[in-house]
Formats: sequence, structure tokens, C-alpha cells
Amino acid sequence: MRTEEQIFQLMDEDELSLTLINAQYDLRKTQGQKNGKSLIVLVNGIELAGKGEAVKQLREWVDPRYLQVKADQPQVLGEKQTFWQPYTRFIPAQGQIMVLFGNWYSDLLRTTMQTGAIDDAQFDAYLEDMRVFEQDLKNNYVDVVKVWFDLPWKVLQKRLDQIDPSEMQWHKLHGLDWRDKKKYDTVQRLRERFTKDEDWLIIDGEDEKRRDQQFAQHILQSLKHCPNHPVRAKGQWKQAKIPELLQHPSQELAKTEDYKAELKKLSPQVAKALRSDPRNVILLFEGMDAAGKGGAIKRIVKKLDPREYEIQTIGAPEKYELNRPYLWRFWNKLQTDDDICIFDRSWYGRVLVERVEGFASPAEWQRAYDEINRFEQGLINHQTVIIKFWLAISKEEQAARFKAREDTPHKRFKITDEDWRNRERWDDYLKAAADMFERTSTEQAPWHIIATDDKNTARVEILKTILKQLQAD
Amino acid sequence: MRTEEQIFQLMDEDELSLTLINAQYDLRKTQGQKNGKSLIVLVNGIELAGKGEAVKQLREWVDPRYLQVKADQPQVLGEKQTFWQPYTRFIPAQGQIMVLFGNWYSDLLRTTMQTGAIDDAQFDAYLEDMRVFEQDLKNNYVDVVKVWFDLPWKVLQKRLDQIDPSEMQWHKLHGLDWRDKKKYDTVQRLRERFTKDEDWLIIDGEDEKRRDQQFAQHILQSLKHCPNHPVRAKGQWKQAKIPELLQHPSQELAKTEDYKAELKKLSPQVAKALRSDPRNVILLFEGMDAAGKGGAIKRIVKKLDPREYEIQTIGAPEKYELNRPYLWRFWNKLQTDDDICIFDRSWYGRVLVERVEGFASPAEWQRAYDEINRFEQGLINHQTVIIKFWLAISKEEQAARFKAREDTPHKRFKITDEDWRNRERWDDYLKAAADMFERTSTEQAPWHIIATDDKNTARVEILKTILKQLQAD
Repeated sequence: MRTEEQIFQLMDEDELSLTLINAQYDLRKTQGQKNGKSLIVLVNGIELAGKGEAVKQLREWVDPRYLQVKADQPQVLGEKQTFWQPYTRFIPAQGQIMVLFGNWYSDLLRTTMQTGAIDDAQFDAYLEDMRVFEQDLKNNYVDVVKVWFDLPWKVLQKRLDQIDPSEMQWHKLHGLDWRDKKKYDTVQRLRERFTKDEDWLIIDGEDEKRRDQQFAQHILQSLKHCPNHPVRAKGQWKQAKIPELLQHPSQELAKTEDYKAELKKLSPQVAKALRSDPRNVILLFEGMDAAGKGGAIKRIVKKLDPREYEIQTIGAPEKYELNRPYLWRFWNKLQTDDDICIFDRSWYGRVLVERVEGFASPAEWQRAYDEINRFEQGLINHQTVIIKFWLAISKEEQAARFKAREDTPHKRFKITDEDWRNRERWDDYLKAAADMFERTSTEQAPWHIIATDDKNTARVEILKTILKQLQAD
Repeated sequence: MRTEEQIFQLMDEDELSLTLINAQYDLRKTQGQKNGKSLIVLVNGIELAGKGEAVKQLREWVDPRYLQVKADQPQVLGEKQTFWQPYTRFIPAQGQIMVLFGNWYSDLLRTTMQTGAIDDAQFDAYLEDMRVFEQDLKNNYVDVVKVWFDLPWKVLQKRLDQIDPSEMQWHKLHGLDWRDKKKYDTVQRLRERFTKDEDWLIIDGEDEKRRDQQFAQHILQSLKHCPNHPVRAKGQWKQAKIPELLQHPSQELAKTEDYKAELKKLSPQVAKALRSDPRNVILLFEGMDAAGKGGAIKRIVKKLDPREYEIQTIGAPEKYELNRPYLWRFWNKLQTDDDICIFDRSWYGRVLVERVEGFASPAEWQRAYDEINRFEQGLINHQTVIIKFWLAISKEEQAARFKAREDTPHKRFKITDEDWRNRERWDDYLKAAADMFERTSTEQAPWHIIATDDKNTARVEILKTILKQLQAD
């Protein structure tokens, strides 16, 4: 918590405006640079403390084209979505500033006040998740500024006395009866649990001029601070051992009749299990080119209707996606009403292709394992099952499939020069996969490595694994 | 309506697949070209007629990276949103194919069957709106393919007898009891009102192989048809006369004291009127550079809290926006729960800057007036008020303000070389504005031309106009 009283001084308004605008332009210039970032401003506080006025004043001082304001009513935190999911589409692109009135803190306060279902321990657990999420944002070039606009009880009551009755009604919309001293005290007690952190700025809303300037100057400081994001990792990377199964994924061939019988039995079972599971289900496939991801997915959805699932085929990110945290495009592909979501490649690209090809710096991909674990854990905590497959093919079998693709006109599109290039980096990919298993195979979301030289055996194996994990959880 | 029975022949599957993939790639190559387009496929039909299977099979035959499938439950058409609003974010970018299970036709059927509140005349009125909307999509490079999967009553009953009970439950989810002959007949009667149009393909779902191929071959035909969008307009353009007010927008100066008193009276009135209006309100500002759009907006929101409104400052479109219909980025900026949305520049850019600078071809901007009128009328029909302002400044006053901006450090950002260039095309902009007034000033959404050489008079005038239009409607 900082109040900045000691260092705070009113600036000349024109000068403040000019400095803010210049800082905005400097920020925009960092787009795509090593010191690139965007700014997300979380505005919270007591009713009538003037947060609205302060934001309006800020908008007057800056170039409004590069400052967006989003203000949704606070929501009740839901069982089937994480606290950050309602806000992912508002994460600003590098060079942008986004002011969020409704945000995860207002949601947490509202949920606690309204439902009474969150005790202090749960409240603090939420706060810890929020801190960690914000740290991940910061690591990925999104700076987070948090401000609490405060007002003493007596001043609040006086302001309530003075406002127009028609406004009163509107202010009541925001959830609480601010005439109720007990509720006021509860909000104060709750918010202190987070505003005590030193990255919060508390602004006293009594003096309007000071309030607006404190807020604007705080944004200014944050704008000016453009960190140089480290590209080199600290210390030596400890490479995991490559699992034997990846080195030699050969396997016995299944008899075709057995396979067909088994598939006929399993397909409806899998469809039923997926359909009847009350949780969201994410199925995720990684593996070398031609390892059989598409074919496996085809067998999973065999007895499902396309209205019951969604398949996301992940390729290279678009430019506007590159200006945001790498997980951002996946956040937006996860909708909470998609019961079954299948990823043909996924966020693990960060620690696979982006690592191997050098699109992510060592610091970035080495940090990503924990980020991904937290991301998945958040989903798991909110009624999502994540089933992860690595399809392991031998180098010989891949060569045979590449050849077959090249010889089959309507499959030729599946094989490109890039696939051959990737093949040259076979061992690098195996290393990356090994590290990925070691660091992201968690109890609730383990990696399933499936040998796929024999497609039929692999497909049956995958269906059985899905059934097993759905039942186990 | 077409059934294509006469011309339809089964193709070799591998050949069909190859031809589809090549057509996809050809489509992708049209991105940004004169013959560029995307494809949106609206899938509708009787339960169990196999639309899911057909889409799944299509996905097997094509390159799945460039075919997306979206399947939301049909929604009940709402009072506060147009039929197209739930689907705007699924409009594909050029080169892409989007298959929509849930779409405006399924919503219309569901709403009619479920609520009983839509009579035949209203049903047909919706259909007419849909036809027109689709035509606008087509004009803007989004081709629309519409397919109805049909099944005779007896075959449907037989299939219902045969399915697994657990599937039965899922199929019931889709709204109707398909055992009810009366309901079946009603659906058939209703859907014939639209499938009789010749751009619908009706596919008989009895023979699975024919069904899948008919669907895929129909998509193939649509892919292959890449129209050359006309860039030249037909006939001579009839230039509207430039209103006297635009030529000479000078006006009497208001006394400062009067202005302040008036503003003090009007601000809370405007805030109250905007706040209490049950409809969505769109306020829209166009005008020459430095005409005072920002200042006017500031006065409008003076007594509002930023949580009550949203300001959209419109600049040049991003690349991913350029790959879609020009109205697309505005569709996505309109959320149905934004009570008050203020546009600092707007979709009228199409017939102003894009016309003057040649970013839109004559055929495109000349078509845009009607497109915009239809877009606005759709919103107005769904409880939205649109208040449109043109701020008219004289060329002399603009020069004075440009100069003042250049002399004021914290305002210098507002003036760029581009502004001086635009100034050189003053008369072209006046012509464009004149045409815009003549063609898009409708009874329910008229243009208000406000002389702004005296800022104070203009601001008061704008506030009064808002009050007047809100009360009038």
C-alpha cells in the first residue's frame, strides 16, 4: 500500500497533460520492442469517492485515442469460470492503456458481500490467485496498476445527503446500501486485505483536485516505467531425460478385426462419458507432425454431434495476437459454455515450437511452464477436466507417413517444407517434450504419452485413457 | 430453392477432397484481392437429418485449419438486439470458411415455435430483413450459403426409434419434441417460407452418402465462385447541394455568463434523460478536424459517471478489420448492455474519409448509404436511439484552431500533417457531407448540423438537441 502523500505534489495541469501524452506516445513506440508493454488500470473504491470523476479527468489530460475505459457491472464469481475469464478480451495490446472499472477485485467484493459464501480464508486464497495472475501478466508485458479510491464514513454520508435523488438510485445500482455503517465497515475490512499490498495506491477522495492529480500522476509514473524484459534465462537449464517411450515408440500391431470391435465398443462409451460429464472438458493433442492427431480426434468425435464440441486447430499466431500475452489467444478460445473443446496443438507451442525455433527467448519459455500450470490449475479449480496427449511416433514411421502423404494428392496439403525442416530438429523437439512432461505433468492434468506407430492401437489407447481420466477425477 | 437432383452426381471421395482443398487454397489467395471473399455456411434442418454428420464429413475432406465450426444453441430473438448481433463475431475474415449451426434462421424458428409471439406477417418481415442483411454481407465479400437438411416424418420417427436413449435426451435439448406430428408440420410449414428462395439448398437426409456429398459439393461450388466485386459505380453520381450552413457556419457569439448558466441547467437534465431512457442510446459525432467533437462530448458526459457510458474514438481500421465488411468493427463495438455509447467519428467514415481519400471504391461508398441506413434502422427497431451530429466549422475558424493547437504544447498532439492535408480537400469533404445528409438523414435518425465557430453556442445547442430527440422518439 502506498499513499504517496510524502512525495505527492500538484503539477501544473497543462504540463501534466503534456507529460502524460508524451508518455503515451513513448509507450506506443515500444510496441513489439524488448521494453514493450501495455497498461491495465484496475479502479476500485468506495461509492462517491470520485473514481468516475478521476477517470474522466484523466481522459481529458491524455490522448483519448489510446486510452480505453471499460465499465461493466461487477459480477458474481461463478463456479464454472475463473475470476479472470470475464476480462480476457479487455487485456490491452502493447502500447495501449485500458481502464477497468469492473474487475476481479470488485467482483470478489461483490460476491463476498452479496452471497456471504466466501470466508476469510477463501477470500485470501482468491487474492493469492489474483496476485499470481497479475504477476504473469506483468511478465508478459502487461503492467497492472491498482487504485483504491477511499472516503471516510462521515464524508460519504455528507455526499449522499447532497446528491440528486435521481442519482441516488443509480448509485444504489452498484450493489450496496452505502447508508449502512456495518456494510461500509465490512467493505473497508475486506479491501484492506488486498490494499495493504504495496502495489496498491490508496487515494483519498475528499479533495477533488488532489484526487484527480494523484491518480493521473500515478498513471504517469507507471507509463514512464518501461522495463527491459529479460531475454536471457537465469542460471543453467536442467534438461530432463528423454523418456524411453519417446526414443522408441514402436509397438505391437493390433489385429484389424480386434481394433474394429474395440472401437465400436468404445466410441459410444466415450461419447456418453463426455456428454454426461457436468464439467467442461478440454482434450489437447501435441506430437510430431504426422503423429496422427487429426485421426485420433476424428475417432473421439465419431459419436458426437458437431454441436456438442469445438475443435481448435492451432497454427501460428496473428499479428494482433503477438501484441498480447501468448496465452491470450487461448483464453479467448475457451468459452465457458463449450462443454467439450478439442485442441489440435495448443498453448504448449510456447515450450515446443517457440522454444525450438527461438520465437520465445529462454527467459520466456522457461517461465512458461509455471504460467501454463497456473493457467490449467485455474481452469481445473473451476470444473474443467484437462486431458493431455502426446502422440509419440518413431522417426522411421514419420518418414513413411510423409512419403505416403506426398504420394496421395488429397493429403499432400498436410506435408510442407516446414514439416521436413521440423524433422531435422527431431532431437530438439524430443528434448523440449521431455522438459514439458517433467514440468507440466500434474496430478490433475497428467500427460498421456501414446505410441502411435500403429495408429489403431493408439486410437483405442486414447479412447480408453479419456474414459479413465473422466472417471478418475 | 434448389435440390440439385438433376445435376447431382456422386464424385470419387479422394477427388472431391482434393478439389475442396485446392478450392480452399484458391480462396485464401484471394485475401485482400478484388475477388476476395469468405464463406459463411448456415446449417439448418430437421433433427436427425444428419446435418452434424455432413459437417463432420466435410471437415474430413477439407483442410480443417481453414474451416471453423460454431454451434451455439438457438437463442430466442430479443427485444434489445437485432437478429444478427449474436453472430457478428463469427463473421469470417477473407479466405476463411465458417459453418454456423446456430444462426438467425434457427433462432427465428425457435422463437416462433416457443413463444408463439410471431405471426406469419412478422415472420416474413424478419425473413425480409435477413435477406437484405445477407445481401449486404455478400456485397462486402462474405458469401452466404444456406442449407436445409430435411427428413420425411416417417423416416424421422424410425430414426428416433433406433437411437440410444442417452442420445435421445441430447436431441431433445434442441428445442422440440420431434414425436409431435403437429410440431413437425409447423416447422415444415414455417421453414418453407424461406427455403422456397432459390439460394437455399434442400438436402434429403435419407441417403447418408448422397447427403454428405451434396453438402460438400455445394460448398465446393460456392468456393469456386469468386466474384469480381465491381469497383466502378453504375451511372452518374448525383451530387447533393452543399447546405448553406456548411458553407457559412458563422454564428453569433454567446455571452459567457449566459452560456455558463445554460450549461449548468442543461447538464443534469441531459444526464437524467440519458440515464433514465430505457433504450440504448448512440450519440455520434462527425465533422472537420478541430470542429470541437471532443469538447462537445466532454460536456455531454459531465454529469455522468464513466460506468454509465462508453466513448469509442474511431481511427483507421486494423489489418484484421480490413479483411471483413467495413461495418464489422462497429458491430462488435456495440454491446447490447451499453446503455450510452458515444462515437467520436463513426461508420460514416466510409462515405467521408474513405470516399475522399479513395480507400473505398465508388461502387463501395455509393452502396454504403443504404447499408448504413439498414444497419441503423435495425438498431432503431430494437430499442436504440441514434443521435447524429455534424459539427460545422468555417475554414477560417479551423485555421485559427489549428494554429492555437500548434502553439499549445499539450494540445499539439491533436494536430498532425494529416490534418493539414485534409484541410486541402475541404471542398471534397463538404461534398461528401452533403451527400451523406441527403442520403442518411432519416426520420428516426436525422442529422443535426451544428455550427461550431462559437464553441459555447454549439455545446448548448447539442445538449438541447439531445433532449429534444430523446423526448420526441
